[in-house]
Amino acid sequence: MEAVLRQQIGKIVSLSDDEFQFVLSHFLVGNYKKHQYIIQQENPVPYVHFVVKGLLKSFYIDKSGKKHILQFAMKDWWITDNQGFYNKQNATLNIDCLEDAQTFYITLENREKLCAELQKMEFFFLQKMTAGNIALQNRILSLMSKNSEERYMQFIQLYPDLIHRIPKTLIASYLGISRETLSRLSH
Amino acid sequence: MEAVLRQQIGKIVSLSDDEFQFVLSHFLVGNYKKHQYIIQQENPVPYVHFVVKGLLKSFYIDKSGKKHILQFAMKDWWITDNQGFYNKQNATLNIDCLEDAQTFYITLENREKLCAELQKMEFFFLQKMTAGNIALQNRILSLMSKNSEERYMQFIQLYPDLIHRIPKTLIASYLGISRETLSRLSH
Repeated sequence: MEAVLRQQIGKIVSLSDDEFQFVLSHFLVGNYKKHQYIIQQENPVPYVHFVVKGLLKSFYIDKSGKKHILQFAMKDWWITDNQGFYNKQNATLNIDCLEDAQTFYITLENREKLCAELQKMEFFFLQKMTAGNIALQNRILSLMSKNSEERYMQFIQLYPDLIHRIPKTLIASYLGISRETLSRLSH
Repeated sequence: MEAVLRQQIGKIVSLSDDEFQFVLSHFLVGNYKKHQYIIQQENPVPYVHFVVKGLLKSFYIDKSGKKHILQFAMKDWWITDNQGFYNKQNATLNIDCLEDAQTFYITLENREKLCAELQKMEFFFLQKMTAGNIALQNRILSLMSKNSEERYMQFIQLYPDLIHRIPKTLIASYLGISRETLSRLSH
Protein backbone atom coordinates (compact mmCIF):
# COMPACT_ATOMS: atom_id res chain seq x y z
CA MET A 1 0.00 0.00 0.00
CA GLU A 2 2.94 2.34 0.59
CA ALA A 3 3.73 2.09 -3.11
CA VAL A 4 0.55 4.05 -3.97
CA LEU A 5 1.69 7.06 -1.96
CA ARG A 6 5.29 6.78 -3.08
CA GLN A 7 4.26 6.68 -6.72
CA GLN A 8 2.08 9.76 -6.39
CA ILE A 9 4.78 11.78 -4.65
CA GLY A 10 7.35 10.47 -7.17
CA LYS A 11 5.40 12.03 -10.03
CA ILE A 12 6.08 15.46 -8.55
CA VAL A 13 9.32 15.26 -6.51
CA SER A 14 11.97 12.58 -6.25
CA LEU A 15 12.57 11.09 -2.79
CA SER A 16 15.29 8.71 -1.62
CA ASP A 17 14.20 5.56 0.25
CA ASP A 18 15.19 7.21 3.52
CA GLU A 19 13.27 10.35 2.71
CA PHE A 20 10.17 8.36 1.83
CA GLN A 21 10.39 6.42 5.11
CA PHE A 22 10.70 9.76 6.86
CA VAL A 23 7.58 11.04 5.06
CA LEU A 24 5.72 7.85 5.95
CA SER A 25 6.61 8.18 9.63
CA HIS A 26 4.34 11.26 9.77
CA PHE A 27 1.27 9.28 8.66
CA LEU A 28 -0.95 6.71 10.34
CA VAL A 29 -2.87 3.90 8.65
CA GLY A 30 -6.65 3.59 8.92
CA ASN A 31 -8.94 0.74 7.90
CA TYR A 32 -12.64 1.40 7.49
CA LYS A 33 -15.71 -0.65 6.70
CA LYS A 34 -18.34 0.20 4.11
CA HIS A 35 -20.79 2.80 5.55
CA GLN A 36 -18.30 3.85 8.24
CA TYR A 37 -17.90 7.62 8.74
CA ILE A 38 -14.45 9.15 8.91
CA ILE A 39 -15.64 12.75 9.26
CA GLN A 40 -18.96 13.97 10.63
CA GLN A 41 -20.67 17.35 10.25
CA GLU A 42 -20.30 19.53 13.38
CA ASN A 43 -17.31 17.50 14.62
CA PRO A 44 -13.59 18.33 14.59
CA VAL A 45 -11.54 17.39 11.51
CA PRO A 46 -8.18 16.15 12.77
CA TYR A 47 -6.89 14.51 9.57
CA VAL A 48 -6.50 14.68 5.83
CA HIS A 49 -6.67 11.21 4.23
CA PHE A 50 -4.80 9.74 1.29
CA VAL A 51 -6.86 6.84 -0.09
CA VAL A 52 -4.92 3.62 -0.68
CA LYS A 53 -7.91 1.46 -1.51
CA GLY A 54 -11.69 1.58 -1.50
CA LEU A 55 -14.01 4.47 -2.22
CA LEU A 56 -15.32 7.33 -0.11
CA LYS A 57 -17.69 10.24 -0.59
CA SER A 58 -17.97 13.65 1.01
CA PHE A 59 -21.40 15.20 1.28
CA TYR A 60 -23.29 18.07 2.81
CA ILE A 61 -26.71 17.80 4.43
CA ASP A 62 -28.65 21.04 4.00
CA LYS A 63 -31.19 22.54 6.38
CA SER A 64 -34.03 20.64 4.75
CA GLY A 65 -32.18 17.34 5.20
CA LYS A 66 -31.22 16.93 1.55
CA LYS A 67 -27.82 15.38 0.77
CA HIS A 68 -25.45 17.01 -1.76
CA ILE A 69 -22.37 15.10 -2.91
CA LEU A 70 -19.27 17.27 -3.07
CA GLN A 71 -16.63 14.69 -3.94
CA PHE A 72 -15.86 11.02 -4.45
CA ALA A 73 -12.38 9.76 -3.52
CA MET A 74 -10.81 6.54 -4.69
CA LYS A 75 -7.27 5.15 -4.64
CA ASP A 76 -4.65 7.89 -5.10
CA TRP A 77 -6.99 10.73 -4.01
CA TRP A 78 -6.78 13.04 -1.00
CA ILE A 79 -9.93 13.77 0.98
CA THR A 80 -10.99 15.75 4.03
CA ASP A 81 -13.27 18.64 4.96
CA ASN A 82 -10.79 21.33 3.87
CA GLN A 83 -12.38 24.17 5.79
CA GLY A 84 -12.55 22.14 8.98
CA PHE A 85 -9.08 20.65 8.64
CA TYR A 86 -7.08 23.71 7.59
CA ASN A 87 -8.99 26.30 9.62
CA LYS A 88 -9.38 24.01 12.65
CA GLN A 89 -13.14 24.38 12.60
CA ASN A 90 -15.86 21.81 12.98
CA ALA A 91 -16.81 19.98 9.80
CA THR A 92 -19.53 21.24 7.48
CA LEU A 93 -19.21 17.98 5.52
CA ASN A 94 -19.61 14.29 6.20
CA ILE A 95 -17.26 11.71 4.72
CA ASP A 96 -18.17 8.03 4.68
CA CYS A 97 -17.11 4.85 2.91
CA LEU A 98 -18.91 3.54 -0.18
CA GLU A 99 -16.61 0.48 -0.05
CA ASP A 100 -14.25 -0.91 2.58
CA ALA A 101 -11.33 1.52 2.53
CA GLN A 102 -7.78 2.03 3.69
CA THR A 103 -6.08 5.42 4.04
CA PHE A 104 -2.86 7.04 5.15
CA TYR A 105 -3.86 9.99 7.28
CA ILE A 106 -1.95 12.87 8.79
CA THR A 107 -2.64 15.72 11.21
CA LEU A 108 -2.16 19.36 10.24
CA GLU A 109 0.67 19.67 12.77
CA ASN A 110 2.48 16.69 11.28
CA ARG A 111 1.94 17.94 7.76
CA GLU A 112 3.40 21.34 8.64
CA LYS A 113 6.30 19.70 10.48
CA LEU A 114 6.97 17.48 7.48
CA CYS A 115 6.93 20.44 5.08
CA ALA A 116 9.29 22.44 7.29
CA GLU A 117 11.68 19.48 7.54
CA LEU A 118 11.58 18.47 3.89
CA GLN A 119 10.85 21.34 1.53
CA LYS A 120 10.18 18.98 -1.35
CA MET A 121 7.02 17.92 0.45
CA GLU A 122 5.80 21.50 0.70
CA PHE A 123 6.27 21.76 -3.06
CA PHE A 124 4.40 18.46 -3.45
CA PHE A 125 1.43 19.63 -1.35
CA LEU A 126 1.35 22.96 -3.19
CA GLN A 127 1.14 21.11 -6.51
CA LYS A 128 -1.66 18.85 -5.23
CA MET A 129 -3.56 21.80 -3.78
CA THR A 130 -3.20 23.62 -7.10
CA ALA A 131 -4.52 20.61 -9.01
CA GLY A 132 -7.45 20.45 -6.59
CA ASN A 133 -8.13 24.11 -7.19
CA ILE A 134 -8.23 23.61 -10.95
CA ALA A 135 -10.60 20.66 -10.60
CA LEU A 136 -12.92 22.70 -8.36
CA GLN A 137 -12.95 25.64 -10.79
CA ASN A 138 -13.83 23.29 -13.62
CA ARG A 139 -16.57 21.77 -11.51
CA ILE A 140 -18.07 25.22 -10.91
CA LEU A 141 -17.93 26.10 -14.61
CA SER A 142 -19.52 22.77 -15.40
CA LEU A 143 -22.34 23.32 -12.87
CA MET A 144 -22.95 26.80 -14.28
CA SER A 145 -22.62 26.25 -17.99
CA LYS A 146 -23.32 22.62 -18.87
CA ASN A 147 -26.67 20.90 -19.11
CA SER A 148 -27.46 17.53 -17.48
CA GLU A 149 -26.38 15.46 -20.43
CA GLU A 150 -23.08 17.31 -20.88
CA ARG A 151 -22.30 16.94 -17.18
CA TYR A 152 -23.02 13.24 -17.25
CA MET A 153 -20.86 12.71 -20.36
CA GLN A 154 -18.05 14.69 -18.74
CA PHE A 155 -18.27 12.54 -15.60
CA ILE A 156 -18.03 9.32 -17.64
CA GLN A 157 -15.04 10.69 -19.48
CA LEU A 158 -13.22 11.90 -16.34
CA TYR A 159 -14.04 8.91 -14.13
CA PRO A 160 -14.80 5.88 -16.30
CA ASP A 161 -13.94 3.52 -13.41
CA LEU A 162 -16.40 5.11 -11.00
CA ILE A 163 -19.59 4.71 -13.02
CA HIS A 164 -19.99 1.05 -12.05
CA ARG A 165 -18.93 1.44 -8.43
CA ILE A 166 -21.32 4.22 -7.40
CA PRO A 167 -25.12 4.03 -7.04
CA LYS A 168 -26.91 6.13 -9.68
CA THR A 169 -28.65 8.20 -6.99
CA LEU A 170 -25.29 9.41 -5.73
CA ILE A 171 -23.95 10.22 -9.20
CA ALA A 172 -27.12 12.22 -9.85
CA SER A 173 -26.60 14.15 -6.61
CA TYR A 174 -22.95 14.83 -7.49
CA LEU A 175 -24.00 16.16 -10.90
CA GLY A 176 -26.85 18.22 -9.48
CA ILE A 177 -29.44 16.47 -11.65
CA SER A 178 -32.48 14.36 -10.81
CA ARG A 179 -32.35 10.56 -10.55
CA GLU A 180 -34.91 10.36 -13.36
CA THR A 181 -32.82 12.51 -15.71
CA LEU A 182 -29.77 10.36 -15.00
CA SER A 183 -31.72 7.15 -15.72
CA ARG A 184 -32.78 8.57 -19.05
CA LEU A 185 -29.19 9.58 -19.91
CA SER A 186 -27.58 6.33 -18.84
CA HIS A 187 -29.75 4.01 -20.90
CA MET B 1 0.93 49.94 -3.44
CA GLU B 2 3.69 47.65 -2.17
CA ALA B 3 2.17 47.86 1.28
CA VAL B 4 -0.89 45.90 0.14
CA LEU B 5 1.22 42.89 -0.84
CA ARG B 6 3.50 43.17 2.16
CA GLN B 7 0.55 43.26 4.52
CA GLN B 8 -1.03 40.17 2.99
CA ILE B 9 2.20 38.17 3.15
CA GLY B 10 2.81 39.48 6.67
CA LYS B 11 -0.43 37.92 7.88
CA ILE B 12 1.01 34.49 7.07
CA VAL B 13 4.82 34.72 7.31
CA SER B 14 7.11 37.40 8.63
CA LEU B 15 9.60 38.93 6.17
CA SER B 16 12.48 41.32 6.80
CA ASP B 17 12.67 44.47 4.65
CA ASP B 18 15.39 42.84 2.55
CA GLU B 19 13.37 39.69 2.11
CA PHE B 20 10.33 41.66 1.02
CA GLN B 21 12.40 43.60 -1.53
CA PHE B 22 13.70 40.27 -2.77
CA VAL B 23 10.12 38.97 -3.13
CA LEU B 24 9.10 42.15 -4.91
CA SER B 25 11.97 41.84 -7.41
CA HIS B 26 10.23 38.76 -8.84
CA PHE B 27 7.08 40.71 -9.71
CA LEU B 28 6.22 43.27 -12.38
CA VAL B 29 3.66 46.06 -12.12
CA GLY B 30 0.75 46.35 -14.54
CA ASN B 31 -1.74 49.18 -15.05
CA TYR B 32 -4.99 48.49 -16.85
CA LYS B 33 -7.95 50.54 -18.00
CA LYS B 34 -11.59 49.66 -17.41
CA HIS B 35 -12.74 47.05 -20.00
CA GLN B 36 -9.13 46.02 -20.76
CA TYR B 37 -8.48 42.26 -20.92
CA ILE B 38 -5.57 40.74 -19.05
CA ILE B 39 -6.32 37.13 -20.04
CA GLN B 40 -8.22 35.92 -23.09
CA GLN B 41 -9.81 32.53 -23.78
CA GLU B 42 -7.66 30.35 -26.10
CA ASN B 43 -4.54 32.39 -25.39
CA PRO B 44 -1.51 31.58 -23.19
CA VAL B 45 -1.64 32.53 -19.48
CA PRO B 46 1.83 33.78 -18.55
CA TYR B 47 0.99 35.44 -15.21
CA VAL B 48 -0.87 35.26 -11.93
CA HIS B 49 -1.95 38.71 -10.73
CA PHE B 50 -2.16 40.20 -7.25
CA VAL B 51 -4.65 43.07 -7.33
CA VAL B 52 -3.45 46.29 -5.73
CA LYS B 53 -6.38 48.43 -6.78
CA GLY B 54 -9.44 48.29 -8.99
CA LEU B 55 -11.73 45.39 -9.75
CA LEU B 56 -11.54 42.52 -12.23
CA LYS B 57 -13.75 39.62 -13.22
CA SER B 58 -13.01 36.20 -14.69
CA PHE B 59 -15.63 34.63 -16.90
CA TYR B 60 -16.25 31.77 -19.24
CA ILE B 61 -18.10 32.01 -22.56
CA ASP B 62 -19.90 28.76 -23.33
CA LYS B 63 -20.58 27.25 -26.76
CA SER B 64 -23.86 29.13 -27.08
CA GLY B 65 -22.10 32.45 -26.36
CA LYS B 66 -23.45 32.85 -22.84
CA LYS B 67 -21.15 34.41 -20.22
CA HIS B 68 -20.67 32.79 -16.79
CA ILE B 69 -18.85 34.71 -14.06
CA LEU B 70 -16.41 32.56 -12.12
CA GLN B 71 -14.80 35.17 -9.89
CA PHE B 72 -14.48 38.83 -9.02
CA ALA B 73 -11.13 40.10 -7.77
CA MET B 74 -10.54 43.34 -5.88
CA LYS B 75 -7.63 44.74 -3.87
CA ASP B 76 -5.78 42.03 -1.97
CA TRP B 77 -6.99 39.16 -4.21
CA TRP B 78 -5.08 36.88 -6.56
CA ILE B 79 -6.48 36.13 -9.97
CA THR B 80 -5.55 34.16 -13.08
CA ASP B 81 -6.84 31.26 -15.17
CA ASN B 82 -5.45 28.57 -12.85
CA GLN B 83 -5.61 25.74 -15.34
CA GLY B 84 -3.90 27.76 -18.04
CA PHE B 85 -1.29 29.27 -15.74
CA TYR B 86 -0.25 26.23 -13.71
CA ASN B 87 -0.60 23.63 -16.47
CA LYS B 88 0.83 25.93 -19.16
CA GLN B 89 -2.27 25.55 -21.31
CA ASN B 90 -4.28 28.11 -23.21
CA ALA B 91 -6.90 29.91 -21.17
CA THR B 92 -10.47 28.63 -20.85
CA LEU B 93 -11.37 31.90 -19.09
CA ASN B 94 -11.33 35.59 -19.87
CA ILE B 95 -10.29 38.16 -17.30
CA ASP B 96 -11.06 41.84 -17.79
CA CYS B 97 -11.26 45.00 -15.73
CA LEU B 98 -14.52 46.30 -14.27
CA GLU B 99 -12.62 49.37 -13.03
CA ASP B 100 -9.16 50.78 -13.80
CA ALA B 101 -6.79 48.38 -12.07
CA GLN B 102 -3.22 47.89 -10.94
CA THR B 103 -1.62 44.52 -10.23
CA PHE B 104 1.65 42.91 -9.26
CA TYR B 105 2.09 39.97 -11.59
CA ILE B 106 4.55 37.10 -11.69
CA THR B 107 5.42 34.25 -14.07
CA LEU B 108 5.27 30.61 -12.99
CA GLU B 109 9.05 30.32 -13.42
CA ASN B 110 9.63 33.30 -11.14
CA ARG B 111 7.16 32.03 -8.59
CA GLU B 112 8.87 28.67 -8.46
CA LYS B 113 12.28 30.30 -8.27
CA LEU B 114 11.08 32.53 -5.44
CA CYS B 115 9.66 29.56 -3.51
CA ALA B 116 12.88 27.59 -3.93
CA GLU B 117 14.95 30.56 -2.76
CA LEU B 118 12.74 31.56 0.16
CA GLN B 119 10.80 28.67 1.65
CA LYS B 120 8.56 31.01 3.61
CA MET B 121 7.03 32.07 0.30
CA GLU B 122 6.19 28.48 -0.61
CA PHE B 123 4.41 28.21 2.72
CA PHE B 124 2.63 31.49 1.93
CA PHE B 125 1.45 30.32 -1.49
CA LEU B 126 0.34 26.98 -0.04
CA GLN B 127 -1.79 28.82 2.54
CA LYS B 128 -3.33 31.06 -0.14
CA MET B 129 -4.02 28.10 -2.42
CA THR B 130 -5.65 26.29 0.50
CA ALA B 131 -7.85 29.29 1.27
CA GLY B 132 -8.82 29.44 -2.41
CA ASN B 133 -9.70 25.78 -2.30
CA ILE B 134 -11.97 26.27 0.69
CA ALA B 135 -13.72 29.20 -1.00
CA LEU B 136 -14.29 27.16 -4.15
CA GLN B 137 -15.71 24.22 -2.20
CA ASN B 138 -18.08 26.54 -0.41
CA ARG B 139 -19.11 28.06 -3.73
CA ILE B 140 -19.95 24.58 -5.07
CA LEU B 141 -21.98 23.71 -1.97
CA SER B 142 -23.75 27.04 -2.26
CA LEU B 143 -24.57 26.48 -5.95
CA MET B 144 -25.87 22.99 -5.16
CA SER B 145 -27.76 23.53 -1.94
CA LYS B 146 -28.86 27.16 -1.64
CA ASN B 147 -31.75 28.85 -3.40
CA SER B 148 -31.44 32.21 -5.18
CA GLU B 149 -32.29 34.29 -2.15
CA GLU B 150 -29.86 32.44 0.13
CA ARG B 151 -27.07 32.83 -2.42
CA TYR B 152 -27.72 36.52 -2.79
CA MET B 153 -27.78 37.04 0.99
CA GLN B 154 -24.52 35.07 1.31
CA PHE B 155 -22.91 37.25 -1.37
CA ILE B 156 -23.91 40.46 0.43
CA GLN B 157 -22.55 39.08 3.67
CA LEU B 158 -19.24 37.90 2.16
CA TYR B 159 -18.65 40.91 -0.09
CA PRO B 160 -20.55 43.93 1.24
CA ASP B 161 -18.19 46.30 -0.63
CA LEU B 162 -18.78 44.70 -4.01
CA ILE B 163 -22.55 45.08 -4.23
CA HIS B 164 -22.35 48.72 -5.25
CA ARG B 165 -19.37 48.37 -7.59
CA ILE B 166 -20.68 45.57 -9.81
CA PRO B 167 -23.57 45.75 -12.31
CA LYS B 168 -26.53 43.64 -11.21
CA THR B 169 -26.37 41.57 -14.39
CA LEU B 170 -22.89 40.37 -13.47
CA ILE B 171 -23.83 39.56 -9.88
CA ALA B 172 -26.77 37.54 -11.20
CA SER B 173 -24.44 35.63 -13.52
CA TYR B 174 -21.98 34.96 -10.67
CA LEU B 175 -24.81 33.63 -8.51
CA GLY B 176 -26.29 31.56 -11.33
CA ILE B 177 -29.67 33.27 -11.07
CA SER B 178 -31.67 35.36 -13.53
CA ARG B 179 -31.44 39.15 -13.66
CA GLU B 180 -35.17 39.32 -12.88
CA THR B 181 -34.81 37.20 -9.76
CA LEU B 182 -31.92 39.36 -8.57
CA SER B 183 -33.95 42.54 -9.11
CA ARG B 184 -36.75 41.11 -7.01
CA LEU B 185 -34.31 40.13 -4.24
CA SER B 186 -32.41 43.38 -4.16
CA HIS B 187 -35.41 45.66 -3.74
